[in-house]
Amino acid sequence: MFEAAELGHTTPHATYAARLPGLRGDLMRAHLELRDRKFPVIVIVSGADGAGKGELVQRLNEWLDPRGVSTHAFWAGSDEERERPPYWRFWRAMPGRGRIGIFFGSWYSAPIVDRVLGTMKRHRFDTALDRIVAFERMLAADGALLVKLWLHLPRKEQKKRLHKLEREGRLAPDDWKHFKRYRQFTKVSERALRRTDTADAPWRVIEATDRRYRELTAGTLLLKALRQRLDQPARPATKSVAGSKRPRRDADSILDHVDLTPRLTDAEYDRALAAQQLRLGKLAWAAFEQKRSMVLAFEGWDAAGKGSAIRRVVQAVDPRLYRVVGIAAPTDEERAQHYLWRFWRRLPRAGFTTIFDRSWYGRVLVERVEGLTAVADWSRAFHEINDFEEQLAEHGVVLAKFWIHLGRAEQLRRFKERQAVAYKRYKITTEDWRNRAKWDEYKVAVDEMIAKCSTGVAPWTLVAGNDKKFARVQILKTVVKRLEAVL
Amino acid sequence: MFEAAELGHTTPHATYAARLPGLRGDLMRAHLELRDRKFPVIVIVSGADGAGKGELVQRLNEWLDPRGVSTHAFWAGSDEERERPPYWRFWRAMPGRGRIGIFFGSWYSAPIVDRVLGTMKRHRFDTALDRIVAFERMLAADGALLVKLWLHLPRKEQKKRLHKLEREGRLAPDDWKHFKRYRQFTKVSERALRRTDTADAPWRVIEATDRRYRELTAGTLLLKALRQRLDQPARPATKSVAGSKRPRRDADSILDHVDLTPRLTDAEYDRALAAQQLRLGKLAWAAFEQKRSMVLAFEGWDAAGKGSAIRRVVQAVDPRLYRVVGIAAPTDEERAQHYLWRFWRRLPRAGFTTIFDRSWYGRVLVERVEGLTAVADWSRAFHEINDFEEQLAEHGVVLAKFWIHLGRAEQLRRFKERQAVAYKRYKITTEDWRNRAKWDEYKVAVDEMIAKCSTGVAPWTLVAGNDKKFARVQILKTVVKRLEAVL
Repeated sequence: MFEAAELGHTTPHATYAARLPGLRGDLMRAHLELRDRKFPVIVIVSGADGAGKGELVQRLNEWLDPRGVSTHAFWAGSDEERERPPYWRFWRAMPGRGRIGIFFGSWYSAPIVDRVLGTMKRHRFDTALDRIVAFERMLAADGALLVKLWLHLPRKEQKKRLHKLEREGRLAPDDWKHFKRYRQFTKVSERALRRTDTADAPWRVIEATDRRYRELTAGTLLLKALRQRLDQPARPATKSVAGSKRPRRDADSILDHVDLTPRLTDAEYDRALAAQQLRLGKLAWAAFEQKRSMVLAFEGWDAAGKGSAIRRVVQAVDPRLYRVVGIAAPTDEERAQHYLWRFWRRLPRAGFTTIFDRSWYGRVLVERVEGLTAVADWSRAFHEINDFEEQLAEHGVVLAKFWIHLGRAEQLRRFKERQAVAYKRYKITTEDWRNRAKWDEYKVAVDEMIAKCSTGVAPWTLVAGNDKKFARVQILKTVVKRLEAVL
Repeated sequence: MFEAAELGHTTPHATYAARLPGLRGDLMRAHLELRDRKFPVIVIVSGADGAGKGELVQRLNEWLDPRGVSTHAFWAGSDEERERPPYWRFWRAMPGRGRIGIFFGSWYSAPIVDRVLGTMKRHRFDTALDRIVAFERMLAADGALLVKLWLHLPRKEQKKRLHKLEREGRLAPDDWKHFKRYRQFTKVSERALRRTDTADAPWRVIEATDRRYRELTAGTLLLKALRQRLDQPARPATKSVAGSKRPRRDADSILDHVDLTPRLTDAEYDRALAAQQLRLGKLAWAAFEQKRSMVLAFEGWDAAGKGSAIRRVVQAVDPRLYRVVGIAAPTDEERAQHYLWRFWRRLPRAGFTTIFDRSWYGRVLVERVEGLTAVADWSRAFHEINDFEEQLAEHGVVLAKFWIHLGRAEQLRRFKERQAVAYKRYKITTEDWRNRAKWDEYKVAVDEMIAKCSTGVAPWTLVAGNDKKFARVQILKTVVKRLEAVL
């Protein structure tokens, strides 16, 4: 099942000394080439207590260029980490393209330990493993090279190592406790390895009894993985022709079923706005006190009134409690990461709200329609996004997503109005007109987005945007309802 | 002393309603222009309890484009904040160029409160104010626009407001306690305002009794400050001619006094290296246990052996405890901030080490010699850097700075060797040769840097680099000594 170790299980000193300089030189060269090839490398070092994981990580660091490597341990999380979904700390540690991240401890640690200690039920353990598979598949699809090393130590050997560590005073407090569960640990980790041993991210199991053997083997496996990827031609840039699916004008669209006729009179609007804002303001403080976070995502046609709707929301909330993040072109630090990274990094701390003006759905809207992203990549995004939102929901984050809909004629009216009014003119660009010309293509994209990403934990709210007043009140009411449901 | 408030102290509703639309429109336009002008705006809202700071901050947020503003409150710090020097959280919140940061609570809060409560002595309070002045001067010199608003409330009014808040159940726990110290608060804040009211960052005191008056005044003052800056022609890019000071070959240089003759035999080296690394490895764990952080900065001539010296340091330390940061061209997020920001953001958590391969001294080395930074800007940097390092030292961070010196002939020998050896060839570039041609100019820069930035709390270590072995051991010994002095 796992890649067979290619060397014998012990390595005499002479062999080690003979092979080391070549290996180090090759690793250095590969690391240097990596800088220009711009994919991230994630090395996971896992395995039994006392198997020499620490020594191995130290050795790998020695063999690579320290400026291009970061090692992450994931000890007890900081409060900033605990206030976000569990994967936040892994996203935070993700190496950018061209860099190597060594994960000493990783997304495997918590599920395995919890399952061994019995605090996690079998079916929840399997769910955790499914999440890992999805996560690694997503990273790999984005170009990441995953090298997962598992150091295996027979029971007898582990006992010997622990005794040795004990004599040297280097034993960790739980080591003997864990050892008593050796059989259980073996069973659980075998299940974990089997279920997460994928083509994208295969496990490499290394017999860890002999130090020289395990180091040489780990180095060789890392080098092999690096070389294999480096010797492939670079993936072509993700430009692609967008319109593989020609939109059909007469296709049945969920958007056509949005009733755009409701309107509010000024009096109704003033009354409803004031009432909802008052409630929202209080709820935002209640959320703060109960450490409940909220994430709002705003999408919609150009000129649908996203900006002014967001204003009506934030007016109601103490500015210390929210942050508005406008999503435009990514910074170069963001470009060096998976596209979801820029949203993960902005997740609010416990009790706070982040409002995204445009969101992660750009992947399946503008990037799809404009052909900025290959079909295979945006097609995969629906699952990736659902998983992201599921993690938010599991952590208890209140999530609302708004698509502000608009009739095509109404959009035209607003464009013309903007051009006519001097201080609104900056709001209308040639890009808006270009987007308008692609109305039908966007409609197909929106339809698919709503169909695929309106999940139980994270439903889309379609907002009737022809009347701005009605739309704003609808949005406020939705936010209020979501908060009231959990506070 | 302070800018006189230009309006009467109360504003009737009719005046407010008449002036508001114009003010809002002007603010929006100014905010829009700011995006393209690329300087950051820092708005500090401070003043008495109950003076309506919260309402004012909310109003300012309403009047501006929410995507271009962030509001920061600085409540009880997170553990990640407490583990760094106190200003870390302010650096972290700094708006990038083109953005507005509203600081509701700021670097003023802690000193004023501590002084009022008597937990901070008078002379320490003055020192804290001096630090604020230096900090704000530094931000202003980098182009930041600072708008500092102080809401003033007479004693009688404050009492009234607190009673009202009490009736509404909105009183903060300490409000009455603070009120009892009204006289002390007035005295302390007057001193703070007087000492920090500078040309770069003047205070604007606003009579806060009347809500409409204070909001209109604050908005008008912000607009005025923005307009004034926006209407100035943009500062020319900081290109400048470097060689205002012609280096004199025969000038007495501290570098000429570095004895480059010491050498170690292989046997001496192996013994000393092993001994020092063993000690360092243990000290790094002791530092972790005692939550003591360390920052190491490496500078030196090209080919002086910075990289290999860093390797010898990190070999000794568990990779979970350190991070190596290579300083090359800044990312665009870094370019949008003050040059020290990229170093602040990388400061280690308690118990960890960050190693900078090249450092903040680039400002007074390469940027100076290559003329990338105006003379006025790099000249100021010596003070800025000293203040930065002082803050590290005050927080208990162990700091060591190494300049690895090298004879000019030895550098030439190494360049030639690198060109001759295939796998070292990538290490030598035309830039290295260009830098070598500017040896004398660099020497002047290094001399001044060492003279001005070798302070009691952060001395420079000049490393004799002609013999790599000697240099590595000297560096290890220095790090060990620094750690032993505090652990």
